[in-house]
Amino acid sequence: MFVPEFAWSLDPKLAGTLPVGDFAVSRLLLTNDVNYPWLVLVPRRPAVVELIDLQANEQTQLLAEVDATARALKAITGCDKLNIAMLGNQVSQFPVHVIARFRDDAAWPLPVWGAVPPLPYQAAERDRLVSSLRQRLDIAPDTGH
Amino acid sequence: MFVPEFAWSLDPKLAGTLPVGDFAVSRLLLTNDVNYPWLVLVPRRPAVVELIDLQANEQTQLLAEVDATARALKAITGCDKLNIAMLGNQVSQFPVHVIARFRDDAAWPLPVWGAVPPLPYQAAERDRLVSSLRQRLDIAPDTGH
Repeated sequence: MFVPEFAWSLDPKLAGTLPVGDFAVSRLLLTNDVNYPWLVLVPRRPAVVELIDLQANEQTQLLAEVDATARALKAITGCDKLNIAMLGNQVSQFPVHVIARFRDDAAWPLPVWGAVPPLPYQAAERDRLVSSLRQRLDIAPDTGH
Repeated sequence: MFVPEFAWSLDPKLAGTLPVGDFAVSRLLLTNDVNYPWLVLVPRRPAVVELIDLQANEQTQLLAEVDATARALKAITGCDKLNIAMLGNQVSQFPVHVIARFRDDAAWPLPVWGAVPPLPYQAAERDRLVSSLRQRLDIAPDTGH
């Protein structure tokens, strides 16, 4: 059984991201930075800031969501490498980053954090990527209905 | 069933790390950098460079090994935050970093990569940490016997 979502809301520091859709455990977001196709999964669970705060069955479900996201991102972008990271030093939640890396991207071979300033998407490119992700992952934002 | 370890050996780029012990799927290593208590798990599987290269049962086992490692590292160090990352842009394998972070460490709140040059452990401090980890995780290096 999963813990109910009661009292969960997205950390304001993640407000600049774009919602892609909701998995069973996590919300999938697109970072608004055209330098890298960069997704973030945030478990919709209050008071979870570490992997070890999640129960084993929720860890396993989150892993399946990360795996599906990584496969979709690789298929859509044709990236050279996937970077997956759970850092969360600056937010009160537990964001899992899934980033498509290319050998000619702005930070390669270093991690992306702090490498170059974020560059927002053009609307058409952003919508195309979000649409591809929703279709491939069969998810949509929770509209509250 | 797990894929046999046939033909696996540690990427030479990870040779500067210190062996802690072997889990069922991964080898646990200590990064020789006293700036942060920094562990690395490397699945002992040939040709695995991405999470999505592992079968689902091996992903789940690796997650359990990461969870145990993270719990042990937090208990031993009393760290403020755990950072867990799968980058692997510069090695031919799939290293999972598990790093104990403190609000007064050399890179906080940024990720550790590239922040400050590594500073090797003194032997006594290194041995104490490796010994604590082996005891708490009940693992030892594979001596080939």
